[in-house]
Amino acid sequence: MTVKMLQHKGKKPIFVSNNSTKARNEYITKLESLGIDGIDISQIINSAYSTAIYVHDVLKLPINKKIHVLGKEGLCNELRLFGYEVVNYDQLVKNGAEITMDNITTFVDPDVACVVVGLDFDVTYLKLGLTLQYLLRKEITFVATNIDSTFPYGKTKLPGAGSIVETVSFASGRQPDAICGKPYNGMMDSILVHHQLNKGTTIMVGDRLNTDMKFGNVNGIDTLLVLTGIEPESAVANGHDDVTYYADKLGDLYELSV
Amino acid sequence: MTVKMLQHKGKKPIFVSNNSTKARNEYITKLESLGIDGIDISQIINSAYSTAIYVHDVLKLPINKKIHVLGKEGLCNELRLFGYEVVNYDQLVKNGAEITMDNITTFVDPDVACVVVGLDFDVTYLKLGLTLQYLLRKEITFVATNIDSTFPYGKTKLPGAGSIVETVSFASGRQPDAICGKPYNGMMDSILVHHQLNKGTTIMVGDRLNTDMKFGNVNGIDTLLVLTGIEPESAVANGHDDVTYYADKLGDLYELSV
Repeated sequence: MTVKMLQHKGKKPIFVSNNSTKARNEYITKLESLGIDGIDISQIINSAYSTAIYVHDVLKLPINKKIHVLGKEGLCNELRLFGYEVVNYDQLVKNGAEITMDNITTFVDPDVACVVVGLDFDVTYLKLGLTLQYLLRKEITFVATNIDSTFPYGKTKLPGAGSIVETVSFASGRQPDAICGKPYNGMMDSILVHHQLNKGTTIMVGDRLNTDMKFGNVNGIDTLLVLTGIEPESAVANGHDDVTYYADKLGDLYELSV
Repeated sequence: MTVKMLQHKGKKPIFVSNNSTKARNEYITKLESLGIDGIDISQIINSAYSTAIYVHDVLKLPINKKIHVLGKEGLCNELRLFGYEVVNYDQLVKNGAEITMDNITTFVDPDVACVVVGLDFDVTYLKLGLTLQYLLRKEITFVATNIDSTFPYGKTKLPGAGSIVETVSFASGRQPDAICGKPYNGMMDSILVHHQLNKGTTIMVGDRLNTDMKFGNVNGIDTLLVLTGIEPESAVANGHDDVTYYADKLGDLYELSV
């Protein structure tokens, strides 16, 4: 209801997620099931997509350069949609390669100019080892989809993209050159360049202080924290640097408007 | 020759390695091939063994407590030799378990009181995820065999134990409670308690400043750096905090003695 009301008032909602494993059209389906329609796929930004925008529009990596990806197929596909050739362990194995510790360096593709690391549920030692071979070459750019240490799964937590990034970061002694998830500016750069937003008339709405609210504030955008389960009101009642406004729920906007 | 000469003079050589994947008797064979015999297995300390000593003699983990290991069989075996029951992913799978992201929490053993993490060439996402389940329980002690970021392999480097440790450390938001490799004191504690050495009459010999020499110095033992390829003389010619003595090679001691 609230999103519909905002759309009717001419506002353009953009949905921002750190997930890099899902395809963006799955979000459209989910939003439709919640009664939110009229959302174009360009209004869905997950960290796989923001990574692809970042590599293409901010880094301006030439299309004839290849990208090595440690991550899921969804991430590879977003990069391919921009015209890049993706090389990685899964691809090599699919083409019949038998990669071992002894021959791993022979699978390093000299045309790779960028390494992208995200969450990979099928990560193995040899995958990490292959990615390391690229990161040992300082001239290759190192991009992380996001650095969330874990993600909630059922009643527990499982290792997040950040934990995979951290492995190859520690092994190579390098920090990522860009991080394309909230709260880092790689993601905001991607959104701004793609949607040509005016920061003064944009607001970041979310339920987490350390990602959503920080994401807005460090990038110069007003923020609205919704207290729908993650953060308690006590965390912001006396003011919080990253929070411009807070409300019990997004629906309060709708109630105020009628 | 030099080691033999030292043995004849009543000195007890102890060989110290950060490798946690090899069995200690493989080192005996290697030393014999170099003409060094009369070495008892207790004089070989790798980080798998020092981890086992640490858990048993320093942490004093009761024998009825189980240990979850993310690492190779060599590491598990050293812990078993002290009487501990090891539970881990490989063991579960060998016993027919079908572990998935959905059922992973059902494989957490409530009798585990210690997590040991070392190098595992067969690491996978689910292995990391299972180890995380234990580390999320703050009452479980977290021990690392060593934190070397990489290890030399042929003409390249591959991810070391430290990179695996870093993954689960980042995911859990915890630092290891003890690190049992050079230059950390977990390994020295293990050696001192096991061999009852007198620090005043012990010297640490090695070829690396950041592991061997630091290991001696931070633990209050004189050091001898041998310039056999890793460090240049220029690094120590004007003095170095961690280096008491330096020589071109260990064999210089033999030449001086005859």
